[in-house]
Amino acid sequence: MQKSTLTRLPRHIGIIPDGNRRWAQSHSKEKHEGYVYGIDPGFDLYELCIKEGIKEITFYGFTQDNTKRPAIQTKAFQEACVHAVMKLAHRDANLLVVGNTQSPLFPKELLPYANQKVCFGKGLIQINFLVNYSWNWDLMHSLANAPRAKSDLLTHLASSSVSRMDLIIRWGGRRRLSGFLPIQSVYADFYVLDEFWPDFKSDHFYQALDWYQQQDVTLGG
Amino acid sequence: MQKSTLTRLPRHIGIIPDGNRRWAQSHSKEKHEGYVYGIDPGFDLYELCIKEGIKEITFYGFTQDNTKRPAIQTKAFQEACVHAVMKLAHRDANLLVVGNTQSPLFPKELLPYANQKVCFGKGLIQINFLVNYSWNWDLMHSLANAPRAKSDLLTHLASSSVSRMDLIIRWGGRRRLSGFLPIQSVYADFYVLDEFWPDFKSDHFYQALDWYQQQDVTLGG
Repeated sequence: MQKSTLTRLPRHIGIIPDGNRRWAQSHSKEKHEGYVYGIDPGFDLYELCIKEGIKEITFYGFTQDNTKRPAIQTKAFQEACVHAVMKLAHRDANLLVVGNTQSPLFPKELLPYANQKVCFGKGLIQINFLVNYSWNWDLMHSLANAPRAKSDLLTHLASSSVSRMDLIIRWGGRRRLSGFLPIQSVYADFYVLDEFWPDFKSDHFYQALDWYQQQDVTLGG
Repeated sequence: MQKSTLTRLPRHIGIIPDGNRRWAQSHSKEKHEGYVYGIDPGFDLYELCIKEGIKEITFYGFTQDNTKRPAIQTKAFQEACVHAVMKLAHRDANLLVVGNTQSPLFPKELLPYANQKVCFGKGLIQINFLVNYSWNWDLMHSLANAPRAKSDLLTHLASSSVSRMDLIIRWGGRRRLSGFLPIQSVYADFYVLDEFWPDFKSDHFYQALDWYQQQDVTLGG
């Protein structure tokens, strides 16, 4: 697909990069070995988003739910998230890491990027990265911090700097949000690919954009 | 499909009955004329759910977003909701209507059923009906009413009596939640049918149950 055929672009895309463990198993590897293969696809997608003029991407790194998995898996996805950020530091993006830093499961290496926007290079795109995130934690933050006035709930979410998502793309075939930013996803269009995330191809991205163009945006109206 | 082949049933199913206006247009009717054709399918589905042992269903009636539509449409879907409840009163279900009653757009006829469970007949199934609902209103209710302690957010939602949904089925082809119970939907599996809601067939229900059986339930873990 050529860029010229895309007339209606999402401003903000959410990414659920699922299927790393199933991909590993299908390649005769241990489950935890899959996560490291999920780093490069993120950068392929980052390049495509800049090329097509997407303004904001949110990656679902890992959740507090995910850390109930075996320790070897938890260590592997924590390390993959750290490596991804270290690699992004050499690119051109504004980064915001959103997650519960009050837990030993939050990687210490990412504390400098947590809950504040950090600019790398030319800052060509806004990238949000959910690390040790939990939908419940996100909402509780609001309850604990918001004045009891209307309209303050949303501005006091832990994720309040993350804008409403237009399109969510999920790899790995599951048709569910799995707690991905429940407030920012209320009006999002949801596109699911059966392929596992480490098998990312640019065609997946264009399939999703092509489908998105055919949707209407009503924001519930 | 026979009941005996269903080994893994959702306890609670959410229903987004979309496509009434598009159905009307495709039948040479005015858009607002579609809603009345959405009542009987709800009862067909109710019968099937009782037959298969589903414990709870939540129907997305209309939202505060929806009431921004032309007045003739708003009147039509308000009336359809009232008729649906009057008809259900002769069946066997526990009914809970959830919605913002502090607005003239909430149908007065449904005030006796609002925000409290009412038992009709043998009460064979729990039916929740969202009427003049808004995700924002639902969450704000919590902010205004919850003590500032952890874990109180969810018990103070306006929809706090509605349990977590296992499966959401949407008719009309749109792949989005449109603000449907953002907290109860965080882990729900999401099945979309292209057919418009007034064209409901029992096969749609069994397609969704068949697909649901092939999913795993991880609750994010």
